[in-house]
Amino acid sequence: MPTYTYRHRVRYRECDPMGVVYHGHYLDYFEYARTEALRNAGLPYKELEASGVIMPVVDLRLKFHSPARYDDVLAITTSVPDDVPGVRLTFTYEAHIVPDGRLAATGEVTLCFVDAATGRPRRAPAMVADLFRGYSS
Amino acid sequence: MPTYTYRHRVRYRECDPMGVVYHGHYLDYFEYARTEALRNAGLPYKELEASGVIMPVVDLRLKFHSPARYDDVLAITTSVPDDVPGVRLTFTYEAHIVPDGRLAATGEVTLCFVDAATGRPRRAPAMVADLFRGYSS
Amino acid sequence: MPTYTYRHRVRYRECDPMGVVYHGHYLDYFEYARTEALRNAGLPYKELEASGVIMPVVDLRLKFHSPARYDDVLAITTSVPDDVPGVRLTFTYEAHIVPDGRLAATGEVTLCFVDAATGRPRRAPAMVADLFRGYSS
Amino acid sequence: MPTYTYRHRVRYRECDPMGVVYHGHYLDYFEYARTEALRNAGLPYKELEASGVIMPVVDLRLKFHSPARYDDVLAITTSVPDDVPGVRLTFTYEAHIVPDGRLAATGEVTLCFVDAATGRPRRAPAMVADLFRGYSS
Repeated sequence: MPTYTYRHRVRYRECDPMGVVYHGHYLDYFEYARTEALRNAGLPYKELEASGVIMPVVDLRLKFHSPARYDDVLAITTSVPDDVPGVRLTFTYEAHIVPDGRLAATGEVTLCFVDAATGRPRRAPAMVADLFRGYSS
Repeated sequence: MPTYTYRHRVRYRECDPMGVVYHGHYLDYFEYARTEALRNAGLPYKELEASGVIMPVVDLRLKFHSPARYDDVLAITTSVPDDVPGVRLTFTYEAHIVPDGRLAATGEVTLCFVDAATGRPRRAPAMVADLFRGYSS
Repeated sequence: MPTYTYRHRVRYRECDPMGVVYHGHYLDYFEYARTEALRNAGLPYKELEASGVIMPVVDLRLKFHSPARYDDVLAITTSVPDDVPGVRLTFTYEAHIVPDGRLAATGEVTLCFVDAATGRPRRAPAMVADLFRGYSS
Repeated sequence: MPTYTYRHRVRYRECDPMGVVYHGHYLDYFEYARTEALRNAGLPYKELEASGVIMPVVDLRLKFHSPARYDDVLAITTSVPDDVPGVRLTFTYEAHIVPDGRLAATGEVTLCFVDAATGRPRRAPAMVADLFRGYSS
């Protein structure tokens, strides 16, 4: 699955009394970035859910490097391992402030494939596994 | 249904670079206040949903009077009309800053009774109508 | 100031257990739309704040017409009156679901020009008044 | 500083189309829990900011164990190390679902003491250090 860069404009409601992005919003940004990275790879998350698979977040880590401010544009790069995923899939993120390129935040978010009907973890469905096979070589 | 006052402590993430509560959060506060007013009246919203009725918001109005700041406590009073509701029910709110009592915001939020299975509007279910009958006289 | 249409992709975190956009998020969407409408007109809100003027929201009204769902794209049109504003400025919004054009929500949000140093309302600064004069005729 | 348990009722707006708490909201819950743990220890965060010290989040980790649902009550326990902090302070959290006690989420959030005037990291101010000395022995 190819690396993908999503751009997000920092909104007023996302900034706190320190004048910078409140840390929790980076999780939202990373969701947007993940969604668009999957779409770019040909796998809209909506189709995954329609096929009966959901992907709850099970683990995450964020580090904050430099504060982003109101109206800054963040370039958020999403990447995943090359290997075909098993039950879990970890997305890695870097958010840089455009235009000077300062690193704002980095993170890792691990999601689990779950059968929506039973609520049980399961292996990555074929539409995901095939996607990874198509890009590895 | 009796008037009910819910208290909310303003959180850091709810304040913007002006140092005051970002206006959109009052809708969240009013949801919390509505939920607790219904529970206090003996009708947890969760039970309503379990009975197959959902209540989407269809119309709302907010006015902002005085800014609330980080760590302020808001006393939010919820009231409803005395009449047994038909298809819609309007909640009226006043949020005052404790302890000086300054008025922070007021609002009206109208919800509609909808059959969860069909997605169609319907009249207030018996558990709601009875609640109103019990308090009017 | 010209009418401007901003597009927003509905995010997972914005949808509630009914599977539709939680009503409060429309206020966020309207902030994004307002910000981009002002930028498009040549007046980034950030410059306004840098000049010592802030614009708190004082009054708003929303109506919900048809539910938007996860991954829907909303086309949000922002318009303002032709007249040069005094102390207040009202933005009017229409959010349509792309591609079928169903109306999701409409709203009016009124902001007030406030001197950041004194906290007092003031008339629209020249950079705003000129903008309106440039578009009226 | 004593361990403190804060209770939070899960709100409708915090639940996603899977019917469970959207993962990002745990960061909000942990902010509420941290704020009340500090207040309980005699150190309102507001006083810390008034003294010219801010505490941005620099690093965090969350793990999700069992999904919490609408209207569940979460009991969130906050604890800190016994040692007097230097430049950073790590809070550890456990969120259990009341009444059955299932573990919903755990986390660690590290904040940094920063001089608000210069934006530079600094050692924990006396009002914090004294607090820790008072509880260690």
